[in-house]
Amino acid sequence: MVSPDITLETVREAHERIAGFIHRTPLMRSRSLNALMSADVVFKCENLQRAGVFKARGAFNAVYSLTDAEATRGVVTSSSGNQAAALSLAASSRGIPAYIAMPKGALKSKVNAVRRYGGNIVWVESRGAVPTSEEYEATAARIQDETRANPVHPYNDRRTIAGQGTCALEIIDERKNLDFVLAPVGGGGLLAGVSLVFKALGANTRVIGCEPEMADDACRSFRAGNIVPQRDPRTIADGLRTSLGDLTFSLISHNVDDIVTVSEEAIIGAMRLIWETLKILIEPSSAVAVAAALERKIPVSGKTVAIILSGGNVDLDNLPWRANQ
Amino acid sequence: MVSPDITLETVREAHERIAGFIHRTPLMRSRSLNALMSADVVFKCENLQRAGVFKARGAFNAVYSLTDAEATRGVVTSSSGNQAAALSLAASSRGIPAYIAMPKGALKSKVNAVRRYGGNIVWVESRGAVPTSEEYEATAARIQDETRANPVHPYNDRRTIAGQGTCALEIIDERKNLDFVLAPVGGGGLLAGVSLVFKALGANTRVIGCEPEMADDACRSFRAGNIVPQRDPRTIADGLRTSLGDLTFSLISHNVDDIVTVSEEAIIGAMRLIWETLKILIEPSSAVAVAAALERKIPVSGKTVAIILSGGNVDLDNLPWRANQ
Repeated sequence: MVSPDITLETVREAHERIAGFIHRTPLMRSRSLNALMSADVVFKCENLQRAGVFKARGAFNAVYSLTDAEATRGVVTSSSGNQAAALSLAASSRGIPAYIAMPKGALKSKVNAVRRYGGNIVWVESRGAVPTSEEYEATAARIQDETRANPVHPYNDRRTIAGQGTCALEIIDERKNLDFVLAPVGGGGLLAGVSLVFKALGANTRVIGCEPEMADDACRSFRAGNIVPQRDPRTIADGLRTSLGDLTFSLISHNVDDIVTVSEEAIIGAMRLIWETLKILIEPSSAVAVAAALERKIPVSGKTVAIILSGGNVDLDNLPWRANQ
Repeated sequence: MVSPDITLETVREAHERIAGFIHRTPLMRSRSLNALMSADVVFKCENLQRAGVFKARGAFNAVYSLTDAEATRGVVTSSSGNQAAALSLAASSRGIPAYIAMPKGALKSKVNAVRRYGGNIVWVESRGAVPTSEEYEATAARIQDETRANPVHPYNDRRTIAGQGTCALEIIDERKNLDFVLAPVGGGGLLAGVSLVFKALGANTRVIGCEPEMADDACRSFRAGNIVPQRDPRTIADGLRTSLGDLTFSLISHNVDDIVTVSEEAIIGAMRLIWETLKILIEPSSAVAVAAALERKIPVSGKTVAIILSGGNVDLDNLPWRANQ
């Protein structure tokens, strides 16, 4: 097992580094959601983060960790979604190029976000409808060869993980003695960073990863004690279809108390409930953690809980409920 | 012309009265919206207010202005929408009954909101599909006769207007020297209260009412110098279909600098833009003020602007754009 070498101090340094660039997102509360969950719940609104997603934290941390000499060569990542937009934004903030290996089938809204933030899209050549990891990596490697750009992995990267963990520092700063903190888990960057911080600063807080039943590799890996790759994930939670990496798996194994799974129906219901009660847009990946509390997958009754709403990037032309004139 | 007898002091007293019950809603900003509007814009998020709408301010002020003896008899109002929910919430907070005269054709989501907040619905008998003002008033009068409940008008009521004006106190507290403040205008309670406060405290701020072209009674009344009733409003902005009352007209005539109108297409486009950029739900009525800035109906270029996002209660099953699986 790899040793991730990331400490609370690493996360604190990341927070100082990115503080001037990211939003300190609000904690929201709702009496009616408290009643539904029989708990005292705060929602950390990373959907209101820059680029609409917590990934801005890791992306800004990675970009501003580069030396000036490194930075001039730009950054490169593979992503069909949020990482693509977040890294483009961070790179444009520093005035350096971002190269994004994207699948040709990426949603138009995601492609537009990358272009708006000035990212350079390189289409991934693939035999199937969706590129394999190998095809993504081949494209990213080719970009690196050509540009000498610095690779920034969406989750399996110390700078990324430390950046995502800064979210937990802000929660703890405002709410002490939480019984539970819930975060969605896809590649595991957010959960790894958050669990590291809570184990260092909030030893009595149980850290729970929340995952779709239809993409439960993190849950199975956690229980097996080794990485079990994702098989054909068909969840609506498009941000959670990836498998854990070795760094994120190692941190999650050490610091997370449990990983629970929820159904697709519960995800969609939780997403709509948050829209209707908090009046904010969350994407399906964020709704996974809300669903875990609503469905009592975690014994939250009578407890204090923080739920991380990871992002708000949704395709308004393709909502998972009947919605038309 | 009636004299409304509402001063800055009235609004300040209202703010003290309701402060423990309402949310102090955030001011949000967006770099991309600033770029689109060529202005420095803050959004006052009354969509994140309790009951999802600024009307909670006026409703709580009215309910908590009652003496204990008056309060025991409850409150009564006529509304198919936001006022119904807001007054039910405020009444339940004080532990008194709220009687709501609602049309049988009211949206299920609105009916459910009233029930959730414990309001007593009395269906308005009407000959046509939508009740006339006379039919609403007949039902409300019958409830008053039977219950001796205290009527609380949705906008043409001093307590309501003073409550809505508290929103402006919070804006001014955080942002001095605004060039413009934009608010939607339907019955005029919000615009009347807000304009009163800005004329007292922010003499250099131009206060602009924003209205759908398809329901432009306030604009026509403002220009004519007398109340021109609404004729068959067909706007998507369901909160803005009402006509001004004598109190709101009088205050608006004195304190508002201009009223501008926008097209239905611009309203829908602005609504979607706010959802996508700020990641918050706003209802079409709120989008009217955003559209006015986007469409350059007001010379906001290079100026500091506050736009009041009045509410976030939308029917997710009936969105004004293509949205389906």
